[in-house]
Amino acid sequence: MTKKLGVGVLGVGEMGRRHAENLRHLVPNAQLVAVADAVEERARKVAGELEIEKSFGSLEAMLEHKGIDAIIIATPDAFHAPAVSQVAAAGKAMLCEKPLALNLADARASLAAVAKHKVYFQVGFMRRYDPAYASAMKRIEAGEIGVPVVFKSLGRDKEGPPLSYYHSQINGMLFYTNTIHDFDLARWMVQDEVTEVHAFGTAAIRPEVTQFGDVVASVVNLKFAKGAIGNIESHAQAQYGYDVRTEIVGSKGSIQVGSLHRTPATFLTTNGSVSPIADYFLSTFADAYLLEMRDFVDRILNDREPSATGEDGFRALAIAAAAEQSQAQSRVSLVEA
Amino acid sequence: MTKKLGVGVLGVGEMGRRHAENLRHLVPNAQLVAVADAVEERARKVAGELEIEKSFGSLEAMLEHKGIDAIIIATPDAFHAPAVSQVAAAGKAMLCEKPLALNLADARASLAAVAKHKVYFQVGFMRRYDPAYASAMKRIEAGEIGVPVVFKSLGRDKEGPPLSYYHSQINGMLFYTNTIHDFDLARWMVQDEVTEVHAFGTAAIRPEVTQFGDVVASVVNLKFAKGAIGNIESHAQAQYGYDVRTEIVGSKGSIQVGSLHRTPATFLTTNGSVSPIADYFLSTFADAYLLEMRDFVDRILNDREPSATGEDGFRALAIAAAAEQSQAQSRVSLVEA
Amino acid sequence: MTKKLGVGVLGVGEMGRRHAENLRHLVPNAQLVAVADAVEERARKVAGELEIEKSFGSLEAMLEHKGIDAIIIATPDAFHAPAVSQVAAAGKAMLCEKPLALNLADARASLAAVAKHKVYFQVGFMRRYDPAYASAMKRIEAGEIGVPVVFKSLGRDKEGPPLSYYHSQINGMLFYTNTIHDFDLARWMVQDEVTEVHAFGTAAIRPEVTQFGDVVASVVNLKFAKGAIGNIESHAQAQYGYDVRTEIVGSKGSIQVGSLHRTPATFLTTNGSVSPIADYFLSTFADAYLLEMRDFVDRILNDREPSATGEDGFRALAIAAAAEQSQAQSRVSLVEA
Amino acid sequence: MTKKLGVGVLGVGEMGRRHAENLRHLVPNAQLVAVADAVEERARKVAGELEIEKSFGSLEAMLEHKGIDAIIIATPDAFHAPAVSQVAAAGKAMLCEKPLALNLADARASLAAVAKHKVYFQVGFMRRYDPAYASAMKRIEAGEIGVPVVFKSLGRDKEGPPLSYYHSQINGMLFYTNTIHDFDLARWMVQDEVTEVHAFGTAAIRPEVTQFGDVVASVVNLKFAKGAIGNIESHAQAQYGYDVRTEIVGSKGSIQVGSLHRTPATFLTTNGSVSPIADYFLSTFADAYLLEMRDFVDRILNDREPSATGEDGFRALAIAAAAEQSQAQSRVSLVEA
Repeated sequence: MTKKLGVGVLGVGEMGRRHAENLRHLVPNAQLVAVADAVEERARKVAGELEIEKSFGSLEAMLEHKGIDAIIIATPDAFHAPAVSQVAAAGKAMLCEKPLALNLADARASLAAVAKHKVYFQVGFMRRYDPAYASAMKRIEAGEIGVPVVFKSLGRDKEGPPLSYYHSQINGMLFYTNTIHDFDLARWMVQDEVTEVHAFGTAAIRPEVTQFGDVVASVVNLKFAKGAIGNIESHAQAQYGYDVRTEIVGSKGSIQVGSLHRTPATFLTTNGSVSPIADYFLSTFADAYLLEMRDFVDRILNDREPSATGEDGFRALAIAAAAEQSQAQSRVSLVEA
Repeated sequence: MTKKLGVGVLGVGEMGRRHAENLRHLVPNAQLVAVADAVEERARKVAGELEIEKSFGSLEAMLEHKGIDAIIIATPDAFHAPAVSQVAAAGKAMLCEKPLALNLADARASLAAVAKHKVYFQVGFMRRYDPAYASAMKRIEAGEIGVPVVFKSLGRDKEGPPLSYYHSQINGMLFYTNTIHDFDLARWMVQDEVTEVHAFGTAAIRPEVTQFGDVVASVVNLKFAKGAIGNIESHAQAQYGYDVRTEIVGSKGSIQVGSLHRTPATFLTTNGSVSPIADYFLSTFADAYLLEMRDFVDRILNDREPSATGEDGFRALAIAAAAEQSQAQSRVSLVEA
Repeated sequence: MTKKLGVGVLGVGEMGRRHAENLRHLVPNAQLVAVADAVEERARKVAGELEIEKSFGSLEAMLEHKGIDAIIIATPDAFHAPAVSQVAAAGKAMLCEKPLALNLADARASLAAVAKHKVYFQVGFMRRYDPAYASAMKRIEAGEIGVPVVFKSLGRDKEGPPLSYYHSQINGMLFYTNTIHDFDLARWMVQDEVTEVHAFGTAAIRPEVTQFGDVVASVVNLKFAKGAIGNIESHAQAQYGYDVRTEIVGSKGSIQVGSLHRTPATFLTTNGSVSPIADYFLSTFADAYLLEMRDFVDRILNDREPSATGEDGFRALAIAAAAEQSQAQSRVSLVEA
Repeated sequence: MTKKLGVGVLGVGEMGRRHAENLRHLVPNAQLVAVADAVEERARKVAGELEIEKSFGSLEAMLEHKGIDAIIIATPDAFHAPAVSQVAAAGKAMLCEKPLALNLADARASLAAVAKHKVYFQVGFMRRYDPAYASAMKRIEAGEIGVPVVFKSLGRDKEGPPLSYYHSQINGMLFYTNTIHDFDLARWMVQDEVTEVHAFGTAAIRPEVTQFGDVVASVVNLKFAKGAIGNIESHAQAQYGYDVRTEIVGSKGSIQVGSLHRTPATFLTTNGSVSPIADYFLSTFADAYLLEMRDFVDRILNDREPSATGEDGFRALAIAAAAEQSQAQSRVSLVEA
């Protein structure tokens, strides 16, 4: 039998737990060796449920375990960058959830550590693995839409985070946690760099978040180096469901990606036809998360380049930082190169 | 029998001709009395085809005809404002196609004439008459979506205009002829004023238009007075078809308007399911144009207020002017109040 | 100016009134000369509303009017066949609403009169004029789907007729008034004759109609001469709306026709996405009815063959009669040739 | 850790192989112990690929293995019934793929063995596990559609089987392998028994299959005990893709299930909007097959009743047999109770 990749998951909140489950049961070439969490009790509980032996209260402890070849970093956002540096210093491969960091300085420091220790590094832009996005990208790469002219994307969450989420200050704001997926899609699908942005935001329906410098919804205009333009909308609490859609208008043809509905079932009533709407990213992108883990493991085992690199993580973050600045200062902002 | 409203149509290019046809055959309470066009021969030809007696080579001549109660102004954009003033001075009711003028000064002058002569004045924002937009608006007015949070709209034409269109300098650029519809929808559906805009444009796929100060596609971010935000995309040559869509996200629910397809027929082939796409505004909005004419005539006959006023025409134009400035200077622009 | 076709409408219930309105206002080459109805007062009222001068209490009276070139027969079904014979004897062109008659003997008699007097005769299969059906048919005729293999169709009404409708015995049952449209589409789109049928019906949700020999819903299997098969479902009271859909599976490709929704507006709510459903045939097929009238008038004025002939009316009726027999006797029935 | 259920898979053609893969990697509470196939070399190969130790050339041999608690029967159809009897005699739990048998006598014999040995028996009607069908069924059970009036379903395969498939005579014909899914859905969703059927079939586009008594496409009318009616279409070679759709019209509301498209990506081209169509049952129903295996394993481990019983398998088969007779003899057939 093939040698399996030994993986440890750092942070077993909702996201990390999903990665751990996928690695435990659904990624044939991986062996989930351990989970770790700053709340050690939580790590222990997850380990028990997944029927694995090892759980730890810190990354340090987990890194000492012999069987670990790779780490999944799924902590709160503020801890991503330091964890990357630490895993790099330990010489392990890793996938770090988005965003790479909460500011460009931290991002640079962690990527420097990756470079110095020459470890495999992938950033968690899982939408690249979604079958619909992947099939669209294949067509773009085949030249079917010609030159990209307009990139449009939107991401709407059903429910906004609780206020405690903002108070803790350990997670990124709207541009850093939500829009960052679209910033990555923009670069990936247009195959070009975003050079300038302009953002408007609103917190009118939840003014409490203003004190934390955040907004509830935003629109970000994009300008690309080779002449394309674009716009991304993000909304933290659209109420009706979880809705992610992207559209690329090219000089020869266009592509739409995105499905609003949970299942292909429609109810015909006297009020009209009713179709249930998707409600959560972990359902909509269940396949994408699984395919991401499988591909991550295969790339390491076969010594291939990561699908989404540290550079990709950095550049999406730089667009987010520019959008934040634009929105705060009501002006056009240049994206740091 | 009811007294019919005697109507004359000024400008019988494609748009004016459609209005004339509708008035001639499909608006029971109107009588198409005459058509006029700077190219008198064209007016004569259309009069012949529509089987009406009178055609003229100028607005002046048409205004002298006794049977005329109201004028439809459908000339090239540059002649809208002077025609409005002239019709107002003659004391006739009128509908003026969008845009009201090509700059704010001209718009102000023509509205002053309307005010002075106290004539009925309606601006041609026909999308307000489209059954889908109208049904959406009813729901918004009934409070079904709560407070508007994000307004999105897009308008894509299939084929860009010929270069001669730009050379003639008698028609507005992208913001003034295409996006202006969405600027009006924004105000109408959000029920609020747009105060600031930011626009990026691109002419990368047709650099020749740059010399005329125009772009092929644009994205315009919007900020509304009460806190909503928005974005409008316009595209002069999307190739695949004529595509108009609007979406309003509210605090309680959201609405999407817009249909891409020409007829409800789908072809299932080995390449996938294929549905023909709409290709022209006169087809997509055929109902809207007809309903607009019928309602225009009824409002005058029944002495009711216009559905889209001179103020509406002015404010949409002010947003277009701000967008043009923003795009030219790469900065956020305030909308003139 | 062209000579207009003088038309009289017989029967100004809902259907006849629509034809009269279309002829009055929306068919440039027709002149609505008169309307007639067994209830003379109703004819008078409609004439007043449409602002025409003549109304009559009988077909005889209307036929004596000099200006009439053609008659639209839109009486209750039981009176179609005798009216056809009478109009034929008067030497006038005509369009008769479906069904041609309520039994094959009456149909034969009326078609014999048409043949004898050599008058223009068209039967009211207006779906052939619907833009979606027409575009599908064009593709079929162009050979795009290859050989038809399976024909499917369904027609669902929102509300069943009142019991008085059944008591009067002057209108056809489900197969004769509803399914007959699909019987015609089957022959037209498959371009072949239906030779055998089998029908099941149900009245379980409205047992009162059983005493009149009718059912609430039915499924009819079809066998075509050249080997294709098919099925048609009809439902008199589907509650959620008016729903008409057809699908043809061919050896090389397939076509779906039909749209459930009233307008291209969708409401996104916490219960799911909601789209209003069409509710009435006069709305869904408004274009088809208008195009039918225009084409009817043009064919007569230009001496062209009818689009749907007496033969077409007879054969659809023969399928209905076979379906009725099949359903009553629970066996396969041959269609009379 | 929980005791896992030891499972052996009999028949590792395409279907059995999928079950084996799911059990091996994606069903946490199962342990795939062995695979068996009449072609022993094939069993060995699959065992190697799935990295399990045991493979056998016969059911007998596999049944002797100690670790096996349950068997999945995925042989060609003709061998289902004898395998069921054999597994029952060995006292093991089992899931048998549809159809239960190729005739009612064999089905009865195998169910008698199941009854005698009191083993867990489930038939492979996996559509009951599909998320869209399951959500529709929940609504039906909650009474949301009222009384079922019309049941409609269709199943179209992209490519027909090779002629060798027919020659081997070990697999069922269209009604037994394809339509049988819809026969089960009919009983399950309408919650009633089918009492009478009528079927037309066609082999006009592939006359070679006639010699084997089969057809390429069929339409089957259904009558249910409590008064509902229905129709099912099956097509072995629709060319454009794999298409499965079901619709239930109830007295209060209706439900549609089924999605034609492979991924939520649409391509906008000058030929129209193009969406890739699903092409194979193993993709469309990937989730259903996995959920079926997980549920099968859980039910056995927790001593619960099967979701689709031997009775369900028998009754669907009885409808298929009646449909075959109806089609062969061109008459209405009663379904054996």
